[in-house]
Amino acid sequence: MAATITISSGATWQQVAADRQKHRASTLSLLDPPLPTLDENDLPINTIHLARKYLTEEELKITETVPENLVSQLAKGELSSVAVTKAFLRRAGLAQLTTNSITELLPRRALDRAASLDANLAQHQKPIGPLHGLPISVKEHIGMAGLDLNGGFVSWVGRVAEKDALILEILWRAGAVFYVRSTQPQSLMHLETSSNLYGVTTNPFNRTLTAGGSSGGEGALVGFRGSCLGIGTDIGGSIRSPAANNGVYGMKPTSGRLPMGGLTATQLGEEQVVPTIGPLSTSLEGCKLFMKTIIDAKPWYREPTLLPFPWREEDVFKGRKLKVAVMWDDGVVKPHPPVTRALQQIVDRLKGKENIEIVEWKPYKHDLAWEIIAGLYFCDGGADEAEAINSSGEPWRPLTKHILIENPHCKAHTITSMWAATVQRDVYRSEYAALWNETATSTGPNGEPEGMVDVILCPVGPGAAPKIDTSKWWGYTSQWNLLDYPALVFPVDRVDSVKDGKKVRYEPRNEKDKFNWDLWEEYGVEGWEVAPVCLQLVGRRYEDEKVIQALEILQKEAGFPFVEYI
Amino acid sequence: MAATITISSGATWQQVAADRQKHRASTLSLLDPPLPTLDENDLPINTIHLARKYLTEEELKITETVPENLVSQLAKGELSSVAVTKAFLRRAGLAQLTTNSITELLPRRALDRAASLDANLAQHQKPIGPLHGLPISVKEHIGMAGLDLNGGFVSWVGRVAEKDALILEILWRAGAVFYVRSTQPQSLMHLETSSNLYGVTTNPFNRTLTAGGSSGGEGALVGFRGSCLGIGTDIGGSIRSPAANNGVYGMKPTSGRLPMGGLTATQLGEEQVVPTIGPLSTSLEGCKLFMKTIIDAKPWYREPTLLPFPWREEDVFKGRKLKVAVMWDDGVVKPHPPVTRALQQIVDRLKGKENIEIVEWKPYKHDLAWEIIAGLYFCDGGADEAEAINSSGEPWRPLTKHILIENPHCKAHTITSMWAATVQRDVYRSEYAALWNETATSTGPNGEPEGMVDVILCPVGPGAAPKIDTSKWWGYTSQWNLLDYPALVFPVDRVDSVKDGKKVRYEPRNEKDKFNWDLWEEYGVEGWEVAPVCLQLVGRRYEDEKVIQALEILQKEAGFPFVEYI
Repeated sequence: MAATITISSGATWQQVAADRQKHRASTLSLLDPPLPTLDENDLPINTIHLARKYLTEEELKITETVPENLVSQLAKGELSSVAVTKAFLRRAGLAQLTTNSITELLPRRALDRAASLDANLAQHQKPIGPLHGLPISVKEHIGMAGLDLNGGFVSWVGRVAEKDALILEILWRAGAVFYVRSTQPQSLMHLETSSNLYGVTTNPFNRTLTAGGSSGGEGALVGFRGSCLGIGTDIGGSIRSPAANNGVYGMKPTSGRLPMGGLTATQLGEEQVVPTIGPLSTSLEGCKLFMKTIIDAKPWYREPTLLPFPWREEDVFKGRKLKVAVMWDDGVVKPHPPVTRALQQIVDRLKGKENIEIVEWKPYKHDLAWEIIAGLYFCDGGADEAEAINSSGEPWRPLTKHILIENPHCKAHTITSMWAATVQRDVYRSEYAALWNETATSTGPNGEPEGMVDVILCPVGPGAAPKIDTSKWWGYTSQWNLLDYPALVFPVDRVDSVKDGKKVRYEPRNEKDKFNWDLWEEYGVEGWEVAPVCLQLVGRRYEDEKVIQALEILQKEAGFPFVEYI
Repeated sequence: MAATITISSGATWQQVAADRQKHRASTLSLLDPPLPTLDENDLPINTIHLARKYLTEEELKITETVPENLVSQLAKGELSSVAVTKAFLRRAGLAQLTTNSITELLPRRALDRAASLDANLAQHQKPIGPLHGLPISVKEHIGMAGLDLNGGFVSWVGRVAEKDALILEILWRAGAVFYVRSTQPQSLMHLETSSNLYGVTTNPFNRTLTAGGSSGGEGALVGFRGSCLGIGTDIGGSIRSPAANNGVYGMKPTSGRLPMGGLTATQLGEEQVVPTIGPLSTSLEGCKLFMKTIIDAKPWYREPTLLPFPWREEDVFKGRKLKVAVMWDDGVVKPHPPVTRALQQIVDRLKGKENIEIVEWKPYKHDLAWEIIAGLYFCDGGADEAEAINSSGEPWRPLTKHILIENPHCKAHTITSMWAATVQRDVYRSEYAALWNETATSTGPNGEPEGMVDVILCPVGPGAAPKIDTSKWWGYTSQWNLLDYPALVFPVDRVDSVKDGKKVRYEPRNEKDKFNWDLWEEYGVEGWEVAPVCLQLVGRRYEDEKVIQALEILQKEAGFPFVEYI
């Protein structure tokens, strides 16, 4: 293998990027049988169905099976890990050709691993762990031993992970096969995926739309079914935006539940807003399997920032009503009609269900919440990001400018001003908790509130997948990072030119709202054809298990998703 | 009531302090029957037995009853809360006259509250909660509605708490009676208790020794039996040092288990080293009752930084061996002989016990741990503390200088250097966790370590209660703040001129060690007559319940404390 071309070895940023792309192409060329050569200019707007054209029936069947069924068949030997891995390698390769979503394929190490797992199963007649033989896709900034760890910066190319991130170690031991690494944006702080190293990751359902970000490579891969279970990270919506934009499940857990050791990013050591790691998957069960597998390994013994909660499987509701609060709008940026319609459909179907109570959630100063979190994202004023970008001479991508330069709340803190901002964060958290406590219907024996709202059902963003470079309002996702609440994204519907095409008269409340609504006016419903529409379910801090159980109940009662995407 | 004299109203620091002391005296004068006038110069070195002279048999009996028995008798109406509160008011008043440990008595509000609880019990024939009628003492910087909240700074006198701290709200609802507020040092960052407002709090067993700090008022009160259960705070040893110096129990829980809302201190918003709040008590059961009562009220609903762990009462050990690691010395400052003897006694008694395994704990870079935490205590270089002190003109107390000015690790951080120091903290935490994992004897089904050491048994400090103004080595307690491990202090023995009097030849390893050993050489064993000797039991993060259960087992098997203090 040729040495990686890097800035420190005297290359220009363009040479470094070209070399990374060449490396990527070389890993795709290892596919057997090879993929076709596709001309980007000839691609249809909706590329999702190209898989039908270029993959075998068996590959389609495998890659469209949900992870819980794959692991079950793999454990019984009904499917070999080699066959499953090959199928996902090929479909991930095709996802690259259509959505530009990967940084490299790992065919050799993945197939070696798969073969070894198959041999182990044949010999011992039992799986090595709950993920035996399952291919898992991994966002690039999650360190993988011996591989480049550039975090989306040209200047960081050439940094190599010494060992696997803890989360990968645990998944490996559980039987996972790592076969592809996925794209992320410059700075990791976009709700899209656009970098000078790898270009723009597009949405498989509509190439004029973003796959979301920052885990946009994962979003496009899982949406395209080039992966059934992938790992993303989220500090403002980076798991949820791509999950939503691509019509798949994505979970941002509460911080401190899944291990972050071995990831790269700027600002290591910052604690004002804590990043999280979590799954994107074609199924809810896939997300649960991911969470449970990692937490069952008691990662808190190795990463002491983690909380020693076991994964709790007991029924949270025990036959009592599930109390759902619906937030239609965050009061800052009104969602586009398809989002509101998706919410309305669910609410309509839940009405009159005996085991569910629906109430309204009045958003509490979500504009202030944005000011607080946006002021805490870069306490050094963005100096660390700027250094990582400028040291290679690579240009600033538009959404990097948006969050760092055009963001009026991004400013360099002193220690004292950062403390004050942290107090403001904590006061806001307490106020939001008090709001939630006010929904109590009784008081427990020790004065604690009881009978409160269980979950908030709300949009994931102010529309379906945005047009490229327009994902500017983070509030629907960053809100729950500020509060550190678990939040789960799930597929509901698709933009529909008939149902969503009716002209709506609306007077925007502010500049952000106007920007978002103008996009809808400008492109019309046709501009979003046939983008998935997802929603978000949010619980209180550390109630990750409750959120998953609540979604299981809601899915059963309301019968969503209302469409098939593939 | 006369208006409080404050700096902002133009008074000198001396006038403010004199007014606070006058206020304190006025609250003592409300005692009925009154206490004697004691001349400080006539006090014996050991004042612990003066209670025998000035209190009634009934008062002695009540105040020497452990909290779990008091609540039991109060709940049954065998004791009235008024009688119990009066007894503790009088003994706390006497503790003030002998150890200078309180900022004010609260006889009126406490007796009103007690009478109301008595009436409630008479009417309903049941207690209002698990602490019905129990007097609890409170460190001054824990806000109490309508009362001064000066945090030990002259310049802050005149700040009044708007409402009770959340922890007091919960205890109140459980039936507590708040009757006395206790002293703390200037800056709250001493392991002693010395302020310009109230002077020096001394040790009831030996007036030449410190009561410890920063919760030294609580330490002296509980040691003197002017309280059976008090509330302290701890960011470097501030619960454990006074518990140890006064021969009582004290628990520093893991952070995030007990509510901190409504406390005052400098540097609000700092998160590099998280302060904790916890009990000091005459019994282990008292500490447990305190923890359980607060956690049962699910405080995480109101204070969202808290973790929603219930208080777990199930047996952690379930018949298996308790594995205790003994750390004799932290490798930085060698403990004085009485501490080593106390440890040796316990180890000797535990040898051969079937349900206990003893191993050695090798300290891992405790000097580095001190550098890290000492560099993170004041990320603004101490500017906030300096402002709080200098704005009144009050002089810097010796131990304030020690930790802020003479501490080479205290320097003003930039955001970037603070992040780097935080990473260093986390790396150290991971290394310590790895050390603990290495004690595993097997690997669990998901790769997790099993059969590890349960608890570390170690000194609380490098000697018994230090001479005034010599408590300079925090390492034995701050170590567990840096790691955020729960740590429990308990009484074991007393300095004994015969057993501890033998001359030991020792060559100190460093300046800190020399300072500590020289004190022992200088004063000899007689200088510590008859100071309590306590030890510390430490668990891994969030294993608070395990630590308490482990101490219950150790006490039963080894039969300590080996002496009676009262």
